[in-house]
Amino acid sequence: MSLAKGNLINKTFEAYAESNEIGSAWLSGIGALKDPEIGYYSLKKKSYNHKIFSGDYELLSLCGNITIKEGKYFSHTHITFSDTNYQVFGGHLFDAKITAAGEFIMIPGNKNINRKMNLNIGLPLWCLENRF
Amino acid sequence: MSLAKGNLINKTFEAYAESNEIGSAWLSGIGALKDPEIGYYSLKKKSYNHKIFSGDYELLSLCGNITIKEGKYFSHTHITFSDTNYQVFGGHLFDAKITAAGEFIMIPGNKNINRKMNLNIGLPLWCLENRF
Amino acid sequence: MSLAKGNLINKTFEAYAESNEIGSAWLSGIGALKDPEIGYYSLKKKSYNHKIFSGDYELLSLCGNITIKEGKYFSHTHITFSDTNYQVFGGHLFDAKITAAGEFIMIPGNKNINRKMNLNIGLPLWCLENRF
Repeated sequence: MSLAKGNLINKTFEAYAESNEIGSAWLSGIGALKDPEIGYYSLKKKSYNHKIFSGDYELLSLCGNITIKEGKYFSHTHITFSDTNYQVFGGHLFDAKITAAGEFIMIPGNKNINRKMNLNIGLPLWCLENRF
Repeated sequence: MSLAKGNLINKTFEAYAESNEIGSAWLSGIGALKDPEIGYYSLKKKSYNHKIFSGDYELLSLCGNITIKEGKYFSHTHITFSDTNYQVFGGHLFDAKITAAGEFIMIPGNKNINRKMNLNIGLPLWCLENRF
Repeated sequence: MSLAKGNLINKTFEAYAESNEIGSAWLSGIGALKDPEIGYYSLKKKSYNHKIFSGDYELLSLCGNITIKEGKYFSHTHITFSDTNYQVFGGHLFDAKITAAGEFIMIPGNKNINRKMNLNIGLPLWCLENRF
């Protein structure tokens, strides 16, 4: 998949999955992005901390998946990205806009994967018959 | 594959590969983990340096493979992970425990890959007929 | 794919793709490398900034693809790599030499992907009928 300048990464994956009824897929990719909003999950608080990194960055790795959460197609992705000193930052990706280029692969699964809230963790986790 | 809180990452891959007789596979994934033991290889010393990073981290990328080493299923994985400042660390993963969630894909190969000690390098490398 | 000590990463991918007429593929991998030449793209200047990191590093993630640019097989890859303090650096990979080991997967696509210069971006981007 090729994403163009200005595309929101996770939103574009979700729109594509919805259009093509892809109820589970693995995602991987590279490119360049701006102003990523990322976070990390606190098990204690059962919520995400957020931060927006202003500016342009190289997207070194996006890794994640498409599943179905509360009936909607949902991107869960983590990223690493680098600044002009080649230092690397990263976290859970809320979303970010593509700048120069976005090159991704989406590998569809052979069945839908639904997420269901796990109250112990505080997050909607994959529902798999035997976890594998 | 979905790993649950407390699962050791590499150990779980190896147990799954053994149960399902998967003699080669590619691994990719994200999640959250604690106390990762990582390392880097010194070609001079022909051994790994080790370090345990205490605490909770987002797992930004796990990348690696399952092969067979000395008759046993063996995970070789490298990871990047971030702290609460979104700083990123990484290395060769000895092992780490999943905390909030672990979402992985295992892509099986069509034949077993065995590792054999390369004395020049000091590591068990893939045995492939023509390396590709 | 197993790359050996001294192999140039991107060059080896391109040679393999050419020999096997693989006109599009997804790449992922780990290993150890030396003296990587990396860069980041400046949309303003429409060119890459370059830097060589001297020394030995663990390759934590290589992510990218093979496509065809001006009739030639072309690797576009981004990497993250760590030093002896487990600090992580990364960027667009011009090329680097494998040291201890290089373990990669190349997932071929079912048709060629050509790149074409996008004058607005200043880079040769994928030509896909509908971008997906």
